[in-house]
Amino acid sequence: MIELWHCPDARSFRALWTLEEMALPYRLHLLPFPPRLRAPEYLEENPIGTIPLLVDGATRMTESAAIVEYLATRHGPSPLAVAPDEADYGAWLDWLHRGEATLTFPQTLVLRYRRLEPPERRLPQAADDYAQWFGSRLKAVDRALADGRAWLCAGRFTGADISVGYALLLARTLHLDERWSDEIRRYWDRVSTRPGFLRAKAAQGEAA
Amino acid sequence: MIELWHCPDARSFRALWTLEEMALPYRLHLLPFPPRLRAPEYLEENPIGTIPLLVDGATRMTESAAIVEYLATRHGPSPLAVAPDEADYGAWLDWLHRGEATLTFPQTLVLRYRRLEPPERRLPQAADDYAQWFGSRLKAVDRALADGRAWLCAGRFTGADISVGYALLLARTLHLDERWSDEIRRYWDRVSTRPGFLRAKAAQGEAA
Repeated sequence: MIELWHCPDARSFRALWTLEEMALPYRLHLLPFPPRLRAPEYLEENPIGTIPLLVDGATRMTESAAIVEYLATRHGPSPLAVAPDEADYGAWLDWLHRGEATLTFPQTLVLRYRRLEPPERRLPQAADDYAQWFGSRLKAVDRALADGRAWLCAGRFTGADISVGYALLLARTLHLDERWSDEIRRYWDRVSTRPGFLRAKAAQGEAA
Repeated sequence: MIELWHCPDARSFRALWTLEEMALPYRLHLLPFPPRLRAPEYLEENPIGTIPLLVDGATRMTESAAIVEYLATRHGPSPLAVAPDEADYGAWLDWLHRGEATLTFPQTLVLRYRRLEPPERRLPQAADDYAQWFGSRLKAVDRALADGRAWLCAGRFTGADISVGYALLLARTLHLDERWSDEIRRYWDRVSTRPGFLRAKAAQGEAA
């Protein structure tokens, strides 16, 4: 059985959400954040102490967007995956990576230097720089949703929407949603009311 | 014909290196860095102004690690790709993502706050924090190369090595290679002497 180590609403939510969208059986290990400090026994499973960790037989993965892709293809066929012969295959891969590398990492600077560091190590300039950076990169989402498109690519909900949807979830917790366009607000309403999203929220023990 | 917009030794090097490893025909557009300021006409092609931009018919991509995966699968079959039915498929996806999201993004903080920002906006603490962060995440590369393994996964050179190999190239330009293990130094020697790597260096107009 697939095993997932997860902290509520952390990046590992992408993996949990994918498992629920695909209705795959799994065993969830819930950890307090940050596990490195609050669940040191986890370092035996993952020496770097980051989440997620997904174990599926001999496969061990720690990159959340890669896990979305892995589950959708290795445990498919699933409409969450876009196949290499579909027109939007390249767009799908681009969004899977962009959701994490371009839309989530900058937010972790905001989280770190506005909230997690002790006051004397906070860096308002770095937090502001990357809040602005995130906002500018979000314009690509606006363009993808233009002309009334409901989802980022392929004309259907895919792993791309899970990758980017998680970045929006994080942005809400950091109050980076204040300048969102109406398009992005409506998109967030669509992704965050999906039954799979709501089941993932329930599985981690909180209401959506 | 595939078109690639590229700045020497920037992230787009991953795409150029993949094109050369696969011996695919392509047209290269070389831009000065940063193109947003020094080649403003590029904004007509890519409104955000980032590189890479890869155009292949109707497909337009801007995430460098996604482009590696796209070229290896859509334009394969290629040994650079690991197929879903291979044992290391999950590891391959994990490394493709990790090379950029975990091993390259932190280095861009070092680049920005040590070199690119004007002196009054430099942030030594942030640069040091993410130099250290990069070093800690590099331990996963050491583990993958243990027991004499030459490449990160699947027992052969793949797109995973291109994704991570570029992170090592950037680290060298930022002098973040000083504390590399012997394993990583030897790995760097292997990736950076591949004929495909050397052809990519030559294509951007500089000796390797």
